[in-house]
Amino acid sequence: MTISKTEIPYILAVACEDRPGIVARITGVIFEEGGNIAESQQFDDSLSGRFFSRIAFTPSGPGFDEARLRARLQALMAEFDADYRFERADVRRRVVILASKQDHCLADLLYRARTGDLAMDVVAVVSNHPISVYGSLNFGSVPFHHFPVLDGDKRAQERRISALIETLNADLVILARYMQILSDEFSAELNGRCINIHHSFLPGFKGARPYHQAFERGVKLIGATAHYVTGDLDEGPIIVQDVEAVSHRDLPDTLVRKGRDIERRVLARAVRYHIEDRVFVNGRTSVVFPD
Amino acid sequence: MTISKTEIPYILAVACEDRPGIVARITGVIFEEGGNIAESQQFDDSLSGRFFSRIAFTPSGPGFDEARLRARLQALMAEFDADYRFERADVRRRVVILASKQDHCLADLLYRARTGDLAMDVVAVVSNHPISVYGSLNFGSVPFHHFPVLDGDKRAQERRISALIETLNADLVILARYMQILSDEFSAELNGRCINIHHSFLPGFKGARPYHQAFERGVKLIGATAHYVTGDLDEGPIIVQDVEAVSHRDLPDTLVRKGRDIERRVLARAVRYHIEDRVFVNGRTSVVFPD
Amino acid sequence: MTISKTEIPYILAVACEDRPGIVARITGVIFEEGGNIAESQQFDDSLSGRFFSRIAFTPSGPGFDEARLRARLQALMAEFDADYRFERADVRRRVVILASKQDHCLADLLYRARTGDLAMDVVAVVSNHPISVYGSLNFGSVPFHHFPVLDGDKRAQERRISALIETLNADLVILARYMQILSDEFSAELNGRCINIHHSFLPGFKGARPYHQAFERGVKLIGATAHYVTGDLDEGPIIVQDVEAVSHRDLPDTLVRKGRDIERRVLARAVRYHIEDRVFVNGRTSVVFPD
Amino acid sequence: MTISKTEIPYILAVACEDRPGIVARITGVIFEEGGNIAESQQFDDSLSGRFFSRIAFTPSGPGFDEARLRARLQALMAEFDADYRFERADVRRRVVILASKQDHCLADLLYRARTGDLAMDVVAVVSNHPISVYGSLNFGSVPFHHFPVLDGDKRAQERRISALIETLNADLVILARYMQILSDEFSAELNGRCINIHHSFLPGFKGARPYHQAFERGVKLIGATAHYVTGDLDEGPIIVQDVEAVSHRDLPDTLVRKGRDIERRVLARAVRYHIEDRVFVNGRTSVVFPD
Repeated sequence: MTISKTEIPYILAVACEDRPGIVARITGVIFEEGGNIAESQQFDDSLSGRFFSRIAFTPSGPGFDEARLRARLQALMAEFDADYRFERADVRRRVVILASKQDHCLADLLYRARTGDLAMDVVAVVSNHPISVYGSLNFGSVPFHHFPVLDGDKRAQERRISALIETLNADLVILARYMQILSDEFSAELNGRCINIHHSFLPGFKGARPYHQAFERGVKLIGATAHYVTGDLDEGPIIVQDVEAVSHRDLPDTLVRKGRDIERRVLARAVRYHIEDRVFVNGRTSVVFPD
Repeated sequence: MTISKTEIPYILAVACEDRPGIVARITGVIFEEGGNIAESQQFDDSLSGRFFSRIAFTPSGPGFDEARLRARLQALMAEFDADYRFERADVRRRVVILASKQDHCLADLLYRARTGDLAMDVVAVVSNHPISVYGSLNFGSVPFHHFPVLDGDKRAQERRISALIETLNADLVILARYMQILSDEFSAELNGRCINIHHSFLPGFKGARPYHQAFERGVKLIGATAHYVTGDLDEGPIIVQDVEAVSHRDLPDTLVRKGRDIERRVLARAVRYHIEDRVFVNGRTSVVFPD
Repeated sequence: MTISKTEIPYILAVACEDRPGIVARITGVIFEEGGNIAESQQFDDSLSGRFFSRIAFTPSGPGFDEARLRARLQALMAEFDADYRFERADVRRRVVILASKQDHCLADLLYRARTGDLAMDVVAVVSNHPISVYGSLNFGSVPFHHFPVLDGDKRAQERRISALIETLNADLVILARYMQILSDEFSAELNGRCINIHHSFLPGFKGARPYHQAFERGVKLIGATAHYVTGDLDEGPIIVQDVEAVSHRDLPDTLVRKGRDIERRVLARAVRYHIEDRVFVNGRTSVVFPD
Repeated sequence: MTISKTEIPYILAVACEDRPGIVARITGVIFEEGGNIAESQQFDDSLSGRFFSRIAFTPSGPGFDEARLRARLQALMAEFDADYRFERADVRRRVVILASKQDHCLADLLYRARTGDLAMDVVAVVSNHPISVYGSLNFGSVPFHHFPVLDGDKRAQERRISALIETLNADLVILARYMQILSDEFSAELNGRCINIHHSFLPGFKGARPYHQAFERGVKLIGATAHYVTGDLDEGPIIVQDVEAVSHRDLPDTLVRKGRDIERRVLARAVRYHIEDRVFVNGRTSVVFPD
């Protein structure tokens, strides 16, 4: 029953149309196949009629047969017409990070991946700038790709990124302050498997130089929002938000500086939730089962 | 599937020794008897070997038979040797509030009960001071009892409170800044059904005048902790904690004033979690399923 | 040098065009007239060219002559063409509260005024609803005025409120969830001496039912903003903002309920800052010297 | 009057015994010598009788004579028997970082120094472990020193560190999760110019494995405290504290992981406050003028 280091849990994440008895059916199969549920969370959205569940369980003993359980779950998921993922917690996501000149989020993600704080494999960093702009970063064994936008042909550059993502069989793309606006086609392609981070304020400010707008309005809190990319770049389902207090002493420069700290913290948390199968897209919103 | 106003959910809260298949058994019964699970959270404590579950569900249709479901759940809970509570969410707890001169928590709880923000019935307020010290409060129809400690016989006073609690069939006792130290006997009697609030600091300060100690140490955060009363008055399982920033400008007076706001906020949240069956005592700690 | 109870400090709050030597001139006068500065904060806005200062000081001894100091400060402030306020900290503001049906902010302000937590005199509560809707409130000795909007003539009702404010010689008007949109004339009249509270989100949502919009967008934080009323009702200089975490479990109803707690907390803090002369309007923004 | 990039402000930080007229005298000198005060904060501690001030000002024009101002301030500070620092904001502190195996704080400080987020020069990193344990870090041009404790002679190792600090003319020492307990002699030597970071809880836990103790007690918040080192290693004046919510789901491992994020954030903020002359030791406490 314990989550010890020698007993890696399995995670089953399920999203499907709600119907009576789903929980009983799923947990019944896990039980019959020798799994002990260590932690589970369900959520049933009354508006969308969707059901979401994350179940962490460990094998109860030597009789546990992963293949048979997997087959039975697959059949059940097919019956429920469910989107699901079933993996042991130590199966690492393959992650591509897109970055531009500002590297505070990139640096933080690379550090967390290297130290195991985030259990993921960064299989590529792609930038529209050459590696020389990241003089202070240690990429270690992570391949760096400089894909500039040539002759203003953004789609050509995006196709290079797409091809790389496919070649590398990447599960997740992280826009780590990537300052290119994605085309609708690329956004659609990345739908639900790409996390973006941007600044956020109460109230919201549209348009350029949002920290300057926030400064001029005298806000007392600044924040950041991590969300999935959908067709509408900055409007996809929110995963994590956080804020920090600021004051009249802050100039746009210090707001930007404080914003950087919030951005990297919020993005790291959103990535953690994603790779731990804690987030589900639910129409325009998300379901997040916190750690 | 929806939690609408016309469809009050049932809440089943269960704590028992963990064993394989508990979730499947419980959700199976609910399903078979026509309940649709709207939200559920489970937790399985690897150290204590205890299992905790809170399930909110609604009747799926006209065939729902509450009495039969109740009987089946009772049998299942007996089999699991479980502590459990099974009620519709609109069954209100009967609450006795103990207070002393400081009435910020009392005022807040009375207001929240009156307006329905906290779905509970305050069946009595007991104080070791006369009602005249609460000139600013509106008790409405809530009976007020002045039970002073006479001739230093605290146990006699506590026995009056105990008798009142029993007579009123109260489920919950709230120490709303009640400044009497409870006897070991009274604490034991209230074990698990009494919530206390006290100030808290990083680091902790023992002894008298903690805000003065915190001031002398120059802390930058002050906080409050709501917890269940056990034999050890200020050491019972923690339910809610929160903090607020303070500075060198604060004097002990302003620390106390800021502390009041944190105390009433933390206590109200802890009471909400309790009356919504979101809290389980787990040895020295607690399991809290947040709203 | 100490701020003791027997030695009430004086507060000098100054806003004027910045020029070299202001601080030296002001503190020089205070010093020469026997005042000891206990706490002071200055701020010099590089964009607006405005200077702001709050100085708390206590008389250094029996030779202190308040009248002479007041005269000298008056002359200095005239020279600087300054907006200023100079009073002992125990001179209470006269406050009129406007309220509608939702009384969580009203109840909190009345409680804080009664207990001295907020050092102000509530000289009137005005509502567009009769007192019967506030069955749960204790107005104590605070006069209640029911000023309904008759025949849709909002200006007539506003003129009654204006007349009352003038008659009562009120310093501050608080919109405690007052659900009437103020006319431009009334807003202009209250400019800088009226505090409003409203919900706030990251990102902002315009239009009706903002909590429903926030719910549909799946925000993870909800907040509140207290600000001064200007011609643009919800866009005046911000005084205080705060947020609280919410989740996919929250329905619009629970968002509204959680929002209430944030609103009353943010409004109470903004009122405290105002009555302690800690807030200065600075064009579209504000300068806030925290406690 | 503006703090622009071409006009670096001067910072004057003063601590002395309080006496009437200090502010007027200091600001008078600055004004007479052609300085325009951009921001200033004072604090007067009624208990200790100490006065603290931080003044940021810019030269008002070409007539500004830094040398003459410096001389006059020196004379004034001597008269007040003051501890003070007077430098342009772009004069960087020379910092030595001590680290052990855990490198999350070290990595963050190195990144912030490299990118200019923290305006300081890291002149050495000293560890009791060899550089090979920091495989994932980019030290850039920062010299790394491996000073192991040999034959249990900690004082010998400390003397090596002391000599290095002296040779490098370092202003500040940061214990970035340095897991050696400093001797009383070394602590005393570093008094007031060394910042330490440690975990903190409500309530406090003494002794080994504090995260395990916090886990067993079921705390709902964990935190970190940055403070100056004094003779009493973990009890020096507090500079910054912060907390984060945790839950019953957290195991000691995840508490430690979450604690790391709080530690690095709190330490970075404390270092920023120190190098921007925002912190003053005041007996057992500190005065912090926030940014």
